[in-house]
Amino acid sequence: MNPQKIPDIIIGRLPVYLRSLQHMAEKGISTTSSKELGESVGISAAQIRKDISQFGEFGKQGTGYSIHFLIKKLNEILKVDRVWDVALVGAGDIGHALAHYQGFFNCGFKITMVFDNDPAKIGEQIGDFEIFDAANMVEIIQTTGIKVAMLTVPASEAQAVADKLVESGIKAILNYAPISLNAPPDVHVQHIDPVVHLQRMTYYLD
Amino acid sequence: MNPQKIPDIIIGRLPVYLRSLQHMAEKGISTTSSKELGESVGISAAQIRKDISQFGEFGKQGTGYSIHFLIKKLNEILKVDRVWDVALVGAGDIGHALAHYQGFFNCGFKITMVFDNDPAKIGEQIGDFEIFDAANMVEIIQTTGIKVAMLTVPASEAQAVADKLVESGIKAILNYAPISLNAPPDVHVQHIDPVVHLQRMTYYLD
Repeated sequence: MNPQKIPDIIIGRLPVYLRSLQHMAEKGISTTSSKELGESVGISAAQIRKDISQFGEFGKQGTGYSIHFLIKKLNEILKVDRVWDVALVGAGDIGHALAHYQGFFNCGFKITMVFDNDPAKIGEQIGDFEIFDAANMVEIIQTTGIKVAMLTVPASEAQAVADKLVESGIKAILNYAPISLNAPPDVHVQHIDPVVHLQRMTYYLD
Repeated sequence: MNPQKIPDIIIGRLPVYLRSLQHMAEKGISTTSSKELGESVGISAAQIRKDISQFGEFGKQGTGYSIHFLIKKLNEILKVDRVWDVALVGAGDIGHALAHYQGFFNCGFKITMVFDNDPAKIGEQIGDFEIFDAANMVEIIQTTGIKVAMLTVPASEAQAVADKLVESGIKAILNYAPISLNAPPDVHVQHIDPVVHLQRMTYYLD
């Protein structure tokens, strides 16, 4: 299985399938069909079968998918059968929300450190964490070998901080600042931008 | 132009193109190519040409796209050539972050009211807004005719609040709670879920 060969658009749909399957599992459901899964995520059954079949034969004609088995396989494929330590950079409103966010549990991620450059915040507690001085960020991340970061600093600072994260050895950045970040090809960047989601919906409104 | 005929996956990419074009415009750039735009958003030039051509002939062979013209057209297509009033429900950390978010400016959205059910928060100020009692939400939204809402309440309350938003006449819900919401077919729901974005990146990590 060569990661290069699977289009990124398919990879992007797998976490959505996984989330829906986990909700089904929480409700005590043990099997599902591509039709049922498709209806829950708004994607056609044919597309779901095609996407999942890229990775092997995980379903059976007539009986559908074992939810437990498919969750296990998707966790392996997405490499969240382990827990990734995450550095949170920026202890503002969004940083606080993420530090308290319940949705990371059991999904492969755990915030393990928080940085800010505001002297009034450094040394304070945010959830279970002491806020560290961003001036020490590169050294601390290099020492711990953390690969994943969430960036919740103001837009004006985001690129400079992202450059430091790259220097630290971070390979995946989830960016909440409303700007596009430049990063080397081996560093993955995803944006959380409410505007993109809102505009996708207004298209359909009168 | 019939909205039913354009696949939703294409609609979902248009706001990403628009954001990138706006960044180019802010830098004073006046024309771009599908290649350049594609590199900035991580999508192939061919896909971008195909997506945009669904709506008309907006580029010229050899000279590319006028950024100003393409922004204007995308604004029209996505119906953000106007400003949509937005109701924010939930005045917690994420609610505070959204109330102060600078990224909505010039993108078609303006938060105009905030609701919460916490007696300690009702009547307080959040940014420019007084927090209203969620008990009055249905009536207020019906009266004002607002169609777009952002939902930042705890997961345990999200479905019940979403049901009330639907009752209020809301047609587009941006959901920050880590659960899938059920809504009628004429109500559009988008999820903001950091886990989905993080898992899309860990696939590529060692």
